[in-house]
Amino acid sequence: MKKPPLIATLEAGGTKMVAGLATGPDGILAREKIATTNPEETMGRLVEFFKIAVGEYGEVDALAVGTFGPADLNEKSPTYGCILETPKAGWAGTDLLGPLRRVLGGVPAVFETDVNAALFGEATWGAAQGLENAAYFTVGTGIGGGILINGELVHGVGHPEMGHMRVSRHAEDGYAGCCPFHQDCLEGLASGPALEERWKKGAEEWSPDHVAWEIEADYLAQACLNVLMIAPPERIILGGGVMHQAQLFSLVRARLAELLNGYLAYEELRGDLGSFIVPPSLGDDAGLLGCVALGQRFILPPQAR
Amino acid sequence: MKKPPLIATLEAGGTKMVAGLATGPDGILAREKIATTNPEETMGRLVEFFKIAVGEYGEVDALAVGTFGPADLNEKSPTYGCILETPKAGWAGTDLLGPLRRVLGGVPAVFETDVNAALFGEATWGAAQGLENAAYFTVGTGIGGGILINGELVHGVGHPEMGHMRVSRHAEDGYAGCCPFHQDCLEGLASGPALEERWKKGAEEWSPDHVAWEIEADYLAQACLNVLMIAPPERIILGGGVMHQAQLFSLVRARLAELLNGYLAYEELRGDLGSFIVPPSLGDDAGLLGCVALGQRFILPPQAR
Repeated sequence: MKKPPLIATLEAGGTKMVAGLATGPDGILAREKIATTNPEETMGRLVEFFKIAVGEYGEVDALAVGTFGPADLNEKSPTYGCILETPKAGWAGTDLLGPLRRVLGGVPAVFETDVNAALFGEATWGAAQGLENAAYFTVGTGIGGGILINGELVHGVGHPEMGHMRVSRHAEDGYAGCCPFHQDCLEGLASGPALEERWKKGAEEWSPDHVAWEIEADYLAQACLNVLMIAPPERIILGGGVMHQAQLFSLVRARLAELLNGYLAYEELRGDLGSFIVPPSLGDDAGLLGCVALGQRFILPPQAR
Repeated sequence: MKKPPLIATLEAGGTKMVAGLATGPDGILAREKIATTNPEETMGRLVEFFKIAVGEYGEVDALAVGTFGPADLNEKSPTYGCILETPKAGWAGTDLLGPLRRVLGGVPAVFETDVNAALFGEATWGAAQGLENAAYFTVGTGIGGGILINGELVHGVGHPEMGHMRVSRHAEDGYAGCCPFHQDCLEGLASGPALEERWKKGAEEWSPDHVAWEIEADYLAQACLNVLMIAPPERIILGGGVMHQAQLFSLVRARLAELLNGYLAYEELRGDLGSFIVPPSLGDDAGLLGCVALGQRFILPPQAR
């Protein structure tokens, strides 16, 4: 049997980077967390990690990167593989893909958003396994979103920025919103910092029946509804730190059912929406495995996928 | 030179059907408008039209239908090609595709929404020509939306229902909304009937600087923003009866720029958005030509498309 392709992976976050070398869920050969400080230092450590890993495990077949944004995913662009304008000091314009690809001998490379990569991992081995159409929100310090349609991750002019869609304000919510660009967009009203600023203390101190969760669920349900009306997924995964409040799942499902009000009688939308709105299932491995899946898919011929 | 494929087309609307036979924009050989009454009568007239047309112009190579919704676009479904639950009396469950395909000798067939078909026409020969990512709203009696991503029309669980996304209420708008399912969704607040019910007279009686247009533009700009954040198109086409109020285009562009507030510095979003938000360019032929383009694409090998 031919040995499975070896994929170099990078989850690039604003706080930390996770570099890896893997063949699949049961073949994570190496993994290293590296703090995201300045580009020179961080990129230097990443290059070093991959040099050592290749020395130990042999040549890789592909490189796959899932990055924080905004990032240039357009292969035809002169800044393909770079971080674009970002408030993160020093990183705007940094070429993330180029240096890593060079140290790996110019292998085929895939460059995606972190959320799209995590979604692709869930669609390959996790909570959206086998689905051709799925969406993924990560609700934490910010709100990010990824979307898969007809088996392909969605780009366009740039990439999805689902945290910045507009939602309708909850009647009991007097909080102004915290998005520096849009104030009361989804992220401005429903990210972790919005929750903390609105209620003046940490989520761990609120009871599960605090009105905070009802308001939060309303915004997340609106976000799910809008995705459903624009690019209808078969399932929506809600992940990120805020979703560790497990009571949110049933609140979001119930509110989404109210908002739908019987419209769209698809099988996926019947019942309690328990299999339509779900948590991720790959946990901390989602990003790394998403990159492995993207790398494999990119280098294997269609019939072997 | 091989003669171009001959496509049988049907734009199926809730008020009228337009059946056609064409090879492209310069080859519309036959076209007939048929009132949408009850399925038996209307389907009978359509079958008759195609029988006569084939007798006159010869066998067709494909059939393409763009229909009102909701409709079953899922080829694997037992009700593929049928109209689903609709308030239009008698039409729920009607098999639109089957009888037409049979009278045409079982040719390859494509079944799409009317808005997706119109968008595909605009992407092939019109206002979105050559783009791989585009969206289309039709703002009239209802609000429909179509979306093209990576060159493919978007389905998923069902098809886009962009008129039913939620938008944030304009501060000066006290109108309750007219959607029977969701009251103040996009369609409930911004469709033609919403405008008329809110302002108690017909649009032709309001001056172009009536506050009606500012409020309408706010809702349409929010809809454009949400599409941009979820499945980023390179261009958005706004069509339908309400958009005959041409002053709306500059109002929507200006409001969208305000809402974006400098976020997403893509080339497509710079300047006055004059080439990002545009009217359709195929006029009354968009639906028919969209079907021709869909039919051609379906039957031609990829390299000939």
